[in-house]
Amino acid sequence: MSVPAPIASHSAPVGSTTPRSVRWEGAADGQLWLLDQTKLPSELLEFACPSAQAVWDAIRQLKVRGAPAIGIAAAYGVITGMQERLEASSELPSAAAQSLLNQVCDFLATSRPTAVNLFWALDRMRAAGTAACAGKLVQRSELLGQLLQTAQDIHAEDREMCHAIGRHGAELLRSAQGVLTHCNAGGLATAEYGTALAAIFAAQDAGHLLHVYVDETRPLLQGARLTAWELQQRGVPATLICDSMAAQVMREGRVQAVITGADRIAANGDSANKIGTYGLAVLAAAHGIPFYIAAPSSTFDLSLASGEGIPIEQRAPEEITEGLGRRTAPLGIDVYNPAFDVTPARLIHAIITEQGIISPVTTSNVLGQLQAAGKAPQGTS
Amino acid sequence: MSVPAPIASHSAPVGSTTPRSVRWEGAADGQLWLLDQTKLPSELLEFACPSAQAVWDAIRQLKVRGAPAIGIAAAYGVITGMQERLEASSELPSAAAQSLLNQVCDFLATSRPTAVNLFWALDRMRAAGTAACAGKLVQRSELLGQLLQTAQDIHAEDREMCHAIGRHGAELLRSAQGVLTHCNAGGLATAEYGTALAAIFAAQDAGHLLHVYVDETRPLLQGARLTAWELQQRGVPATLICDSMAAQVMREGRVQAVITGADRIAANGDSANKIGTYGLAVLAAAHGIPFYIAAPSSTFDLSLASGEGIPIEQRAPEEITEGLGRRTAPLGIDVYNPAFDVTPARLIHAIITEQGIISPVTTSNVLGQLQAAGKAPQGTS
Repeated sequence: MSVPAPIASHSAPVGSTTPRSVRWEGAADGQLWLLDQTKLPSELLEFACPSAQAVWDAIRQLKVRGAPAIGIAAAYGVITGMQERLEASSELPSAAAQSLLNQVCDFLATSRPTAVNLFWALDRMRAAGTAACAGKLVQRSELLGQLLQTAQDIHAEDREMCHAIGRHGAELLRSAQGVLTHCNAGGLATAEYGTALAAIFAAQDAGHLLHVYVDETRPLLQGARLTAWELQQRGVPATLICDSMAAQVMREGRVQAVITGADRIAANGDSANKIGTYGLAVLAAAHGIPFYIAAPSSTFDLSLASGEGIPIEQRAPEEITEGLGRRTAPLGIDVYNPAFDVTPARLIHAIITEQGIISPVTTSNVLGQLQAAGKAPQGTS
Repeated sequence: MSVPAPIASHSAPVGSTTPRSVRWEGAADGQLWLLDQTKLPSELLEFACPSAQAVWDAIRQLKVRGAPAIGIAAAYGVITGMQERLEASSELPSAAAQSLLNQVCDFLATSRPTAVNLFWALDRMRAAGTAACAGKLVQRSELLGQLLQTAQDIHAEDREMCHAIGRHGAELLRSAQGVLTHCNAGGLATAEYGTALAAIFAAQDAGHLLHVYVDETRPLLQGARLTAWELQQRGVPATLICDSMAAQVMREGRVQAVITGADRIAANGDSANKIGTYGLAVLAAAHGIPFYIAAPSSTFDLSLASGEGIPIEQRAPEEITEGLGRRTAPLGIDVYNPAFDVTPARLIHAIITEQGIISPVTTSNVLGQLQAAGKAPQGTS
């Protein structure tokens, strides 16, 4: 393995659409570029990832975040990791290649625990690589080529899924004037266009301009930094609020729907998403406002009957006490910082996937839709 | 009127109890010192207020905040304002003195719109000053002396009210292990000891140590900066959370009560408090957790039948977009920043005043308690 090259970075181009959060440059010997989302909106910086460790760090440090984007970045990360490990060889025994592939996939899987798209993408990459290792010897170029094809498939499918989610979601928002969202489920969190925001963008594309209330989303302010910026880039009217103002915005009748993304959805529809989502769903129910989840089918984890089994990542206290450049709490104070919460299916009016609308949200409706689309084993209900 | 002296300031003494937020030094010719609450917890700075303008600025800029502390500071501010205006005269016509008094009181009343204790304290100061202006001529020293006596009465009564609120509140928290609070309703918000926090301190004094979950309270972080610090100073176990985590903390069974202060309470018990309080009350109801308001009787505004008439202060967008030392949202983004919300009486299990517990919270129970204590006109129900 060679010494990793110094990390390259440059300003990404700004256009009328959101710049891509994940980008592969070149063929199987090419490289992965990520948009540093921690620098937004003040800086638009793309950086190269020359190693699996660099991809792992970028995921852990939320430079790339959003469940679908994490999955895509990890998929390309497998190629990066294999490039590193196969540098000296043009051909090697399949068993050795398989072992290296497992190492890389297992390593990348430890970057974050909650979003299931990460494991889903790594499983696909592992299966593709394993298929390429079927013979006794494996060609480096063939293996990398197969991995790149699969990563590009995942990437392209996500793009299509986002646009399909947008079309289905826009239907649900047809009678709304105002919509509330939390965290960032936009183009930055996906290949492009987004999940929750895709519904808003698709409504806009169809001539229906919604007014979006954006929760700033403490502690890391993905709403203020990313969602507000994406909406602004696309000319969608948006108003930024603190998370604690959502109840008042609902009470004043400013929004007729709440829509967010998800990081993992259990078979019964219980949905893990950014901390604060569960509270929003309770508040929406109390105000008679429908609450929607928008996510691709790769977000479902059918191995879990309910949300109780979803692991919730606990993050560093400094995200709360020093997350904004200066200390905002006394030294030594105890902090609780769960990154996600789980919204029970009973509070979710509909889950919007690329296949359509799941509503009411029940295990049989979830399985029914995923099976019909060939995304779940038959007869698992 | 003389040129205002340069503002004096010094580090306040740190002890095992919270330093006083408002302090008058000397007799009627003395001066007002305020603790700069915007600098906490990183700096403990007391500064002198040499003019009514300085007091007005301190209230507007939240250097002194918390409804009862605002009332006390404004009361002393009237003396400061009259010192300025009467500097050259030892005696003057009553009508002139009355006019100056009205000027000062009217000016200070424009500093903040929501907390009613401000207007209540200024009304008492105006009445005391008017009484001192009963003759044809008024002695400067006599007028200032009378004003100081009234301000000191307000200050001392608040101290006593806080301790009485603490005793009543501790009773309500007897079966709780964990309590959630929002913003700061502690010693810093009052003469000392606090309102919501007084209940927790009184429980501690009686040997019942509660674990307090502290909402950081965006945008200005009074929970993270002030409440977390006060609890730490007194050795009360405390855990800091983001506002968006409160629902999860409730769901996990970590708290058995929610308790906050109030800035204005209508005759029916509808209570204005820091933005986010209303949402907490809705969440508490959804989780079967009692929600309590703790406030002195000076917080009631019986001229308002319900909370609909309470004016809600709108504050600058920069509190949200740049409130933490660096820009955290794109330039040009629209912002909604109401400083307060109103929690309807139906969501409040009890209001704790210095007179005791009002529960259930109804107009007749509110008026009954205040009338019995001589704080409301008889027969207003």
